Amino acid sequence: MTLEELSARQRAFADARAWGPFHTPKNLVMALTGEVGELNELFQWLTPEEAEAAPTDPDARARIEDEMADVLLYLIRLADVLDVDLIAAGNAKIDRNETRFPPGVGRTALEH
Amino acid sequence: MTLEELSARQRAFADARAWGPFHTPKNLVMALTGEVGELNELFQWLTPEEAEAAPTDPDARARIEDEMADVLLYLIRLADVLDVDLIAAGNAKIDRNETRFPPGVGRTALEH
Amino acid sequence: MTLEELSARQRAFADARAWGPFHTPKNLVMALTGEVGELNELFQWLTPEEAEAAPTDPDARARIEDEMADVLLYLIRLADVLDVDLIAAGNAKIDRNETRFPPGVGRTALEH
Amino acid sequence: MTLEELSARQRAFADARAWGPFHTPKNLVMALTGEVGELNELFQWLTPEEAEAAPTDPDARARIEDEMADVLLYLIRLADVLDVDLIAAGNAKIDRNETRFPPGVGRTALEH
Repeated sequence: MTLEELSARQRAFADARAWGPFHTPKNLVMALTGEVGELNELFQWLTPEEAEAAPTDPDARARIEDEMADVLLYLIRLADVLDVDLIAAGNAKIDRNETRFPPGVGRTALEH
Repeated sequence: MTLEELSARQRAFADARAWGPFHTPKNLVMALTGEVGELNELFQWLTPEEAEAAPTDPDARARIEDEMADVLLYLIRLADVLDVDLIAAGNAKIDRNETRFPPGVGRTALEH
Repeated sequence: MTLEELSARQRAFADARAWGPFHTPKNLVMALTGEVGELNELFQWLTPEEAEAAPTDPDARARIEDEMADVLLYLIRLADVLDVDLIAAGNAKIDRNETRFPPGVGRTALEH
Repeated sequence: MTLEELSARQRAFADARAWGPFHTPKNLVMALTGEVGELNELFQWLTPEEAEAAPTDPDARARIEDEMADVLLYLIRLADVLDVDLIAAGNAKIDRNETRFPPGVGRTALEH
């Protein structure tokens, strides 16, 4: 399944529940924020090593995948409502980043 | 281009700059949070009506697409580092949501 | 009780549970983010009018106060760990904002 | 200066600029989110050790204090608009946490 097909499925899901009036741009940005907050909660008390190892634990992996799915679903719903092509936008951003961050400079990651 | 191909491009971009050591799970969750914060800043003072109309203004649209691209790029980078299949996770979540939220109930959106 | 006294109480609470090792700056920023995410979730599907009226409903008020308390508690814990005087920092910021935003200009709120 | 006095100063600042109409509950939650996002950006690429040491660098300390001030200012502005007593709410939350998390259990921090 493509991202576009997943977005269409998400739209049909919302339409079947008459959630359109709730899915305004501001509301969806807040909902996206809430899910990113839940993703933070999964990692906040882990040491860096525990965070790296989290996906090897089936329960932790299930929770991580669930929250990342929620983030993705609100992001594609917002893109749908705003008529944004996320793949094209992502590609255009990497194009710009290739100019902003020439290869091989390592630590300038701190500034990006 | 598919989401998987965009993710591979993002990974090659990071590898060419030796950013792997910075791209730990916790760091990427924080970077994702920062970009979602910037997306909030674009919408925070707009009325609901202005927010709906924002994509029709070329400058506003460019800023929105830029921040949504940043959110997507950190999300797919995190998925790559954690070996998560985002499309599969998103589909599995809609499957669960179809059980949790039967069609036709409208306002229970408030609880989801 | 002053903010400083509340911060001291929060520190004693953490010390009594040996939570010091978890309360690193990055972890506390992530925990703060998680609580702000929960605050977003309380308001995300409300209309502007419902959001204004929320504090008049006892249950909604209790949830809002609970999440705002969590945000405050992690913020003052972070300030304690980083040795930041929040009241002084807030005052210094309003001093700077008075220069950046001269009175009477209204809509420049959009840029701040 | 007390937190209440800082809040009164922040209210006067907003009133002098006629920002009341922008300072709705939802808008302020989004603005708070934006500032927490900026705080994340200051720490996201730092190692845990660099994050601990950040306050000893004058430039880094100034940026951290500036972002923490912004978080505090939007939090107290939201509390003012919603008529929430933050100090009382924080105390009530520690009261509840003392029941939820008996002293001496250490790692249950992961669940809180």
